[in-house]
Amino acid sequence: MSSIEKLKQLRDETGISMMECKKALDEAKGDLKRAKEILREKGKEMVKGREGKAASNGIVESYIHAGAKIGVLLDLHCESDFAAKSQEFKSLAHELCLQIAAARPLFVKPEDIPEEFLDGEKKIYLKQMEDSGKPKEILDKVIEGKLNKYKEGVCLLSQAWVKDVSKTVQDLIDEAKAKTGENIEVAKFARYEI
Amino acid sequence: MSSIEKLKQLRDETGISMMECKKALDEAKGDLKRAKEILREKGKEMVKGREGKAASNGIVESYIHAGAKIGVLLDLHCESDFAAKSQEFKSLAHELCLQIAAARPLFVKPEDIPEEFLDGEKKIYLKQMEDSGKPKEILDKVIEGKLNKYKEGVCLLSQAWVKDVSKTVQDLIDEAKAKTGENIEVAKFARYEI
Repeated sequence: MSSIEKLKQLRDETGISMMECKKALDEAKGDLKRAKEILREKGKEMVKGREGKAASNGIVESYIHAGAKIGVLLDLHCESDFAAKSQEFKSLAHELCLQIAAARPLFVKPEDIPEEFLDGEKKIYLKQMEDSGKPKEILDKVIEGKLNKYKEGVCLLSQAWVKDVSKTVQDLIDEAKAKTGENIEVAKFARYEI
Repeated sequence: MSSIEKLKQLRDETGISMMECKKALDEAKGDLKRAKEILREKGKEMVKGREGKAASNGIVESYIHAGAKIGVLLDLHCESDFAAKSQEFKSLAHELCLQIAAARPLFVKPEDIPEEFLDGEKKIYLKQMEDSGKPKEILDKVIEGKLNKYKEGVCLLSQAWVKDVSKTVQDLIDEAKAKTGENIEVAKFARYEI
């Protein structure tokens, strides 16, 4: 692949400006995969300062699946009406709806999980291991590990993206943040299944 | 209007069988308005025995309004997959979504309103009337009346239908019950607004 072709592909895949793509390819000495990583890191850097920015604009997106037996409603926020109307933002909203329909998250992020909810899980783990004869410190470690795994699975942002499990949903959102240059937040979602 | 024309109109408006429409027109001595009332009553009778029937089938319907700034998700239950796939049921689901988008209900029915929610309202009414000098019994009556009015407005089923305020949303559902011959229940809904 010529360097022009690489540049074009990088631009197509990331949606980031030609100038930034060229810089990343130079830095990666023409290694396309490395260049993508560099851009992803940069994207995260670029929007880091915006985390606190009020994301009070946005769109409500819905998705109905499987003969109207599954439905998703998503409230996705960004900073400006301009970004809210962009194709990039709409695509992200659609992808997130597909993710919610397929991967059944229960919460947006770990902080949203009620304490009682985790207590119930802990009890199940304890029950499962009560005859293991392991010392308490080990049990606590194992339970903490299981709990973290569990939190990851039930929270939208930490879930593996169903279309590319090498990325989390948060990675997907970070890419859209880099492309729109705005803070983006999943405000809330609902998922109904008959 | 000839009796055949009346019969046709009644059939078109209610969707109920020719035989039932003919009976209702006979009973109403050709008065179309009265015949409709008779059918509505009958419809309610017909489905009365089904109130307890498990409405475990259904569809999830969504509606996005006003440049994706308002979104509604609705979980509407009926008894069979046959009814769930009917045009009648789908139309009802769509109408309910439009109603929810426009009339902003907070709950499905009065029993769903949390006690704290009503306590807050009561306090507001009391505050409004604290200088009225009216005796407590009168105040209680007025507050009860206001509270009932308030409940009516925040619950989907008791709201006036935005397209024809002479009917409640429950009337609309009852009509669909009569047409499908099945119990129909609003299981839940979500309404997001940016």
